[in-house]
Amino acid sequence: MSQHRLVNPLVRNIRALKRVALVRQSVRIEEEIKQGMKKPYNEVIDVSRDNPHATGMKPMSFVRQVIASCIYPELIDSDKMPLDVRKRAKTLLECIGGSVGCYSDTIGIPIMRDSVSDFLTRRDEGVPSASGKIFITHGSDHGFGLLLTMLVRGDRSPLVGVLTPVPSQDFGNATLVASGATAVPYYLDGQQGWRLHTEELQRALRSAREVCDPIALYVINPGDPTGHVQSRESMEEIIRFVYEEKLLLFANEDHQDILIGEGCMFISYKKVLAEMGSPFSDAVELASIHSASKGFMGEGGLHGGYLELVNFDPSVQIEFDRLISLLVLPIIGQLALEVMLNPLQPGEPSYEHYQEKWDWAEQLYGSWLTMALNLCVCRFGRLRITHVLVIFQEEEQLPDFFYCSRLLEQTGLCVCPGSDLGLPEGTYHIRLCIMTSVDTMEEVLRRLGKFHKQFMKDFS
Amino acid sequence: MSQHRLVNPLVRNIRALKRVALVRQSVRIEEEIKQGMKKPYNEVIDVSRDNPHATGMKPMSFVRQVIASCIYPELIDSDKMPLDVRKRAKTLLECIGGSVGCYSDTIGIPIMRDSVSDFLTRRDEGVPSASGKIFITHGSDHGFGLLLTMLVRGDRSPLVGVLTPVPSQDFGNATLVASGATAVPYYLDGQQGWRLHTEELQRALRSAREVCDPIALYVINPGDPTGHVQSRESMEEIIRFVYEEKLLLFANEDHQDILIGEGCMFISYKKVLAEMGSPFSDAVELASIHSASKGFMGEGGLHGGYLELVNFDPSVQIEFDRLISLLVLPIIGQLALEVMLNPLQPGEPSYEHYQEKWDWAEQLYGSWLTMALNLCVCRFGRLRITHVLVIFQEEEQLPDFFYCSRLLEQTGLCVCPGSDLGLPEGTYHIRLCIMTSVDTMEEVLRRLGKFHKQFMKDFS
Repeated sequence: MSQHRLVNPLVRNIRALKRVALVRQSVRIEEEIKQGMKKPYNEVIDVSRDNPHATGMKPMSFVRQVIASCIYPELIDSDKMPLDVRKRAKTLLECIGGSVGCYSDTIGIPIMRDSVSDFLTRRDEGVPSASGKIFITHGSDHGFGLLLTMLVRGDRSPLVGVLTPVPSQDFGNATLVASGATAVPYYLDGQQGWRLHTEELQRALRSAREVCDPIALYVINPGDPTGHVQSRESMEEIIRFVYEEKLLLFANEDHQDILIGEGCMFISYKKVLAEMGSPFSDAVELASIHSASKGFMGEGGLHGGYLELVNFDPSVQIEFDRLISLLVLPIIGQLALEVMLNPLQPGEPSYEHYQEKWDWAEQLYGSWLTMALNLCVCRFGRLRITHVLVIFQEEEQLPDFFYCSRLLEQTGLCVCPGSDLGLPEGTYHIRLCIMTSVDTMEEVLRRLGKFHKQFMKDFS
Repeated sequence: MSQHRLVNPLVRNIRALKRVALVRQSVRIEEEIKQGMKKPYNEVIDVSRDNPHATGMKPMSFVRQVIASCIYPELIDSDKMPLDVRKRAKTLLECIGGSVGCYSDTIGIPIMRDSVSDFLTRRDEGVPSASGKIFITHGSDHGFGLLLTMLVRGDRSPLVGVLTPVPSQDFGNATLVASGATAVPYYLDGQQGWRLHTEELQRALRSAREVCDPIALYVINPGDPTGHVQSRESMEEIIRFVYEEKLLLFANEDHQDILIGEGCMFISYKKVLAEMGSPFSDAVELASIHSASKGFMGEGGLHGGYLELVNFDPSVQIEFDRLISLLVLPIIGQLALEVMLNPLQPGEPSYEHYQEKWDWAEQLYGSWLTMALNLCVCRFGRLRITHVLVIFQEEEQLPDFFYCSRLLEQTGLCVCPGSDLGLPEGTYHIRLCIMTSVDTMEEVLRRLGKFHKQFMKDFS
């Protein structure tokens, strides 16, 4: 029987990420090293994405102690863990039904929504947050996946469009496409630290209206992978834009606790919206996401996040509740999220562990500085340095994947080709994530510098 | 702006499960107990679904020790864990990049697919299994979600149908509907221990063809919630049926390690298919799923499972690989799955822990027996007793939800209304899961018996 008729045409539209091929190349290389094959390097360093634990950053001890104790409750009853860890684990274990093996309610473990809403109210200095408008998710991608399922699946015509920033991670070409939406790119300004210009949004929207029904603007603040932090003025401009154009606003605020750059400060879209007052504050429909996967938690493997809906029509909220009733949420990610939302307070015995957070920030800042200094010394052609992440641009007509694959094979360094981030043909970039230790970053730059000199010699 | 135009019509079709309302009622009741409100019971017992850890079954220590050590690696370097636990955790930690916070590859952590294929080859006594045809998932529901995304999303017309057993869990009315497919019910025979009859499949298929394009048959073996275990003859009949009717075969084999009933034995669909020989063995397209959520692992909160494709057209496999490239897999579920696939061997220091597995089986058998005996004594009207789970049927015209909600309020016992499982109107059932300890089951029956007598007095 022919299966061709059975394949969903949307799946065919998913653009395979080149980074996936590179990661598999890495696995192969590591296997060869293990089997004793001689290479000019001892191990692969993968800075192709924000995966800080894989490149030398340490997880927060308190988080891990609490989760380990929930997993293996004998640790709670022994003296193998600090008292506050045991206390926290005991409370959480009661909430989840006594075992991490229990199924979670589809709205999350009982305290979860309240924890998120308390966290948001504190963070936004009193802007109210209702727990009924908060949805626990597997992480940020999942939050947007739910929104998109809600809005775009089915046989709607014309195609639904979402204005999506470039450069940005795989969201634009994967989750969106699979859900049957179209990503309409708007380009961030690489000449100005990857700022977002409202004129560019207007241009993107005009061009979108020729091919689809654009319903939402997707923003990432702080930027990923650019590291750009939006100013309050810029956010107000964006809010006015979505208000006038009757667009939903999807804000990915995943990196809110990690900023590098002078005078940078995180303000949430929700807070800016509330402070702008009427007509914006009660009209603009905002969906905001955050998770324990990014920032100084970096627990990408654990899958805990949330989504908050602001100003959504009550009838939409009812349908969203219905959709949520399908969810089966992993418990461990929720535990990580819970600890993130309710950090240790001064006076608690493990509070000193929070020094780790500052060590983390120091490493990251050091890594950024090392990168900045080294790039100046090495003169790698034209460069773009952003606050958190760096994109390296070459004018030569080099296929970016060819460069990355060769770099990986010869030096064991894995970086991400710019085309994976939506950057247009002819602008060859690589992305490397600086969310790593200073030592690792020095090694990264040593490998990259040596390779690049030879590469330029061989191919120019 | 009106949001109504934005809601995906498929979401509106999701039938809210009544069990969800009951679970929330439970949470409210527990909160009231905590606040000191007087009730004729001390706690809620929820046997409305298979959630064994929540009702007194113990997780496997070795599994939990290994995972806790991976989460908090200081445990590996100390003498706080047995030697084989530390060894296993060390190996796994190397595989996942040194931290459970690292992102997993979209095909799972490196050893995962090989572990599954080795497990399958052992289980099926040599029937070959290729790791490239195995996909790691968040659990069973997710495996079917992926298959359905692959096959039915988009603007296909006519509607795609999947023949789905009744009674069965929420799969029929949730995942399917959200993906844009139609569940075509076929009814298991409650008079014969919930057997599946091929004539009923034929009837369902004929009626399906009037309203949609039926492409697949979904079977659950061992049955959930029925506990019925299919015989080899019955499986061969089903394979012949899908071959003749050119249907895909989706086999949920999640409960394969837990069977109760005389002479019951689990054989996989893959093994039966291989042993039937040509033309079946190389023509029938089979997708089989299994996970660490069920059986004696019962780690529903951890989210680890796999899906194996057999005989699928290579072009479909390519598209499936593409779809898989969107996945972000949780690490902890994979660790649980890994330990399930590679159980301790005799001679390893922790092997004695596997006694827990037999204790588990003993409790479960005891629970089943207690149930069977008590039901005979209490004479609850007409009964259906199945191997693992019990459905209790009342002839009176009682709305099942009303019964369940009242039962919960008055006795603190949470069971599932049969209508959630697709059972037709007018056949009032409740489901209660016997995968619990003997003590819990005795208490369950005490509460149910007392309530039911009074209920019959009040309403008849």
